[in-house]
Amino acid sequence: MTTSFPSTIDAERDLILTRLIDAPCENVFRAWTEPELLKQWFAPLPWTTPVAEMDVRPGGANLIVMRSPEGEEYPNRGVYLEVVKNRRLVFTDAYTAPWTPSEKPFMTVELTFADEGGKTRYTALVHHWTAADRTTHAEMGFHEGWGQTTDQLAKLASSL
Amino acid sequence: MTTSFPSTIDAERDLILTRLIDAPCENVFRAWTEPELLKQWFAPLPWTTPVAEMDVRPGGANLIVMRSPEGEEYPNRGVYLEVVKNRRLVFTDAYTAPWTPSEKPFMTVELTFADEGGKTRYTALVHHWTAADRTTHAEMGFHEGWGQTTDQLAKLASSL
Repeated sequence: MTTSFPSTIDAERDLILTRLIDAPCENVFRAWTEPELLKQWFAPLPWTTPVAEMDVRPGGANLIVMRSPEGEEYPNRGVYLEVVKNRRLVFTDAYTAPWTPSEKPFMTVELTFADEGGKTRYTALVHHWTAADRTTHAEMGFHEGWGQTTDQLAKLASSL
Repeated sequence: MTTSFPSTIDAERDLILTRLIDAPCENVFRAWTEPELLKQWFAPLPWTTPVAEMDVRPGGANLIVMRSPEGEEYPNRGVYLEVVKNRRLVFTDAYTAPWTPSEKPFMTVELTFADEGGKTRYTALVHHWTAADRTTHAEMGFHEGWGQTTDQLAKLASSL
């Protein structure tokens, strides 16, 4: 891991993805925090992201809807826990609104954007409450899914 | 409820305590956020609170240790989610540190301090992730325990 990475990694409960993106941190952060940008990359194509409502501040809620190629919609609600412009973004599905517990607290996502000579060392550390949930997430295709959307994110960020 | 109360109450999963405290909001907020004050009222006597380490900001951790009359210590770790000086304080045991999931996310506590003619309308809204956890908490003596410590809090706050 890069030395800038802030958290301890729990091998039993966490999943992690890291990538060097050929764009400045500001662009990658914008792609995660501006709804019209997020809609362009968030779902793995040919899925789409028709709705992105995002109150990007600690304690702000979000609603992101993904749509399958068949037209089925999957709403995801969460709350931002930490926002450090161009550096860090943390959110969780443990709340559907501030501070309404969700049906099932599944994950907390800790994103870090670190400058490496004008490029971005992008790291997504995904914490789960249980080892079983980590396994479920891995088996749902975490690495393939987040890998593909990170490709889409990188392409968009480098075009801004 | 007072009109200043910000959250919807979920009758299935929440517990609530409200009290008019004869002290200004500033004093009640201080009693919740200054370690040397918190230690004086937090545990229901004859229990005590020998340790209170509190990083009172959104994403800050706390460690509060309660000690039984027999000398057994019970550490409680959590993270603050929202801090609005003299108005609101929100914390949860869903994390033991930012952003390490706890073994069991049990509750999120939303405290509101509202001025009523120089006194404080104090409300503790305790959200649980499940109805079963609400029942457990009620059967553990939520109303008696929080009632007694709120007496202790009120006494301290009015003496400041």
